[in-house]
Amino acid sequence: MSDIPKTHPRYASLMLRERLVEGFNEGLVVPQGLIAHGRGEMFYYLLGERTTKDARVAAKAAAALLLEAKRSVISVNGNVAALCPKAVVELAEVSGARIEVGLFHRSDQRVSKIAAALERHGAKDVLGFLPDAKIPGLDSMRGLCSTEGIFQADVVLVPLEDGDRAEALARMGKRTIAVDLNPLSRTSKAATVTIVDEVTKALPEISRHVEDFRDDPDARKLALSKYDRDENLAQVMASMMRNLDRKG
Amino acid sequence: MSDIPKTHPRYASLMLRERLVEGFNEGLVVPQGLIAHGRGEMFYYLLGERTTKDARVAAKAAAALLLEAKRSVISVNGNVAALCPKAVVELAEVSGARIEVGLFHRSDQRVSKIAAALERHGAKDVLGFLPDAKIPGLDSMRGLCSTEGIFQADVVLVPLEDGDRAEALARMGKRTIAVDLNPLSRTSKAATVTIVDEVTKALPEISRHVEDFRDDPDARKLALSKYDRDENLAQVMASMMRNLDRKG
Repeated sequence: MSDIPKTHPRYASLMLRERLVEGFNEGLVVPQGLIAHGRGEMFYYLLGERTTKDARVAAKAAAALLLEAKRSVISVNGNVAALCPKAVVELAEVSGARIEVGLFHRSDQRVSKIAAALERHGAKDVLGFLPDAKIPGLDSMRGLCSTEGIFQADVVLVPLEDGDRAEALARMGKRTIAVDLNPLSRTSKAATVTIVDEVTKALPEISRHVEDFRDDPDARKLALSKYDRDENLAQVMASMMRNLDRKG
Repeated sequence: MSDIPKTHPRYASLMLRERLVEGFNEGLVVPQGLIAHGRGEMFYYLLGERTTKDARVAAKAAAALLLEAKRSVISVNGNVAALCPKAVVELAEVSGARIEVGLFHRSDQRVSKIAAALERHGAKDVLGFLPDAKIPGLDSMRGLCSTEGIFQADVVLVPLEDGDRAEALARMGKRTIAVDLNPLSRTSKAATVTIVDEVTKALPEISRHVEDFRDDPDARKLALSKYDRDENLAQVMASMMRNLDRKG
């Protein structure tokens, strides 16, 4: 880790970046993942680097979807494993979701490193190392998945997901939950619920709502009825525009 | 290179990214450079991934500055060397500027790799390997430069430059030309002329105007009189806000 003083105005953002570079040095993250993180950083900056009300509304809808799922899966890539392995494991535990490693730039070595990183934080039975199914419409490597995981799931959480993969999962009829800082991305537009927030904030937020809603079907119903994806994304974009105007 | 189909909607952007990852694998680019590229990608995306009229106005003013310089220098970092070494060499040739390797994360090894990459594309007498001067106000490594290059130059082109370095050069009284996709950055606000465009597009655009203006002092004068940095940056931000609105 670099020696960044806690008083630095962008301390939190720089620490995330350091964590990602560490994951890169360990072989969890590919160079493309660093670039994608930089793009996310700028959107987060435009968002004011905070969890908005719109993100909280979406996180509640996400929690309701997970609780109503028959089979839910959290798809984890290198960036997610580097940034918040513990938050993934906690959400899986509280929601009963399986964890599957799902990569755009897939290699067996990277899948196994990511699974090991999750297991160090308490994950059990991580799927993805021996895929036996395919997501239709993706080329061979990108579409690999496991039958008891993503292939048969009715709800899939895809944090920081590639657009092709997110669209392909939607075409399979699955309900998907995206965590994406770009409200304009194909992933954001393809998901059933899109949370525009920084992933290390979004996953614990979902976990809290899962706990709160577990024995409260009325609250789940309300959360789903209050969420409209396109309206939510439009609000997020309006916030970004206001911030861009103010900073200029 | 990854195998990205030409039909992919974001082919051009993905190819730039691949070029940068190649430069990273060769040791020209640091991880921080990959993240910075991602930040730029997001702004370019908001810009509509095209050269705007505002960028052309700025590129003309940049060409005029270069032609009126007594000693001009192009400062090249790892990302620039990875993305468009040939465009750097061509601009140096057509404008008579020297090329100097100037790095924020400096190591002798990286300077020599970047110089070698430029030389493979025809660059001659690349400066920066044996620095003998210092830019005041920067810590020792970041301020290193060469007397016959950046230190004595009256005009310095700083594509994809760090904010500290750009501000320090401005404080030395130099006229600087920035190429930066973030209209809000300290670099954009510190430069005499700021071109908000993707660097592989901006450098050849400057070269064309240098050729056109070489024997035309009236055109140079007009180009400089038509350019107002703060007004230009405000226009760019307005375009980004409109695009953010339209895409939504």
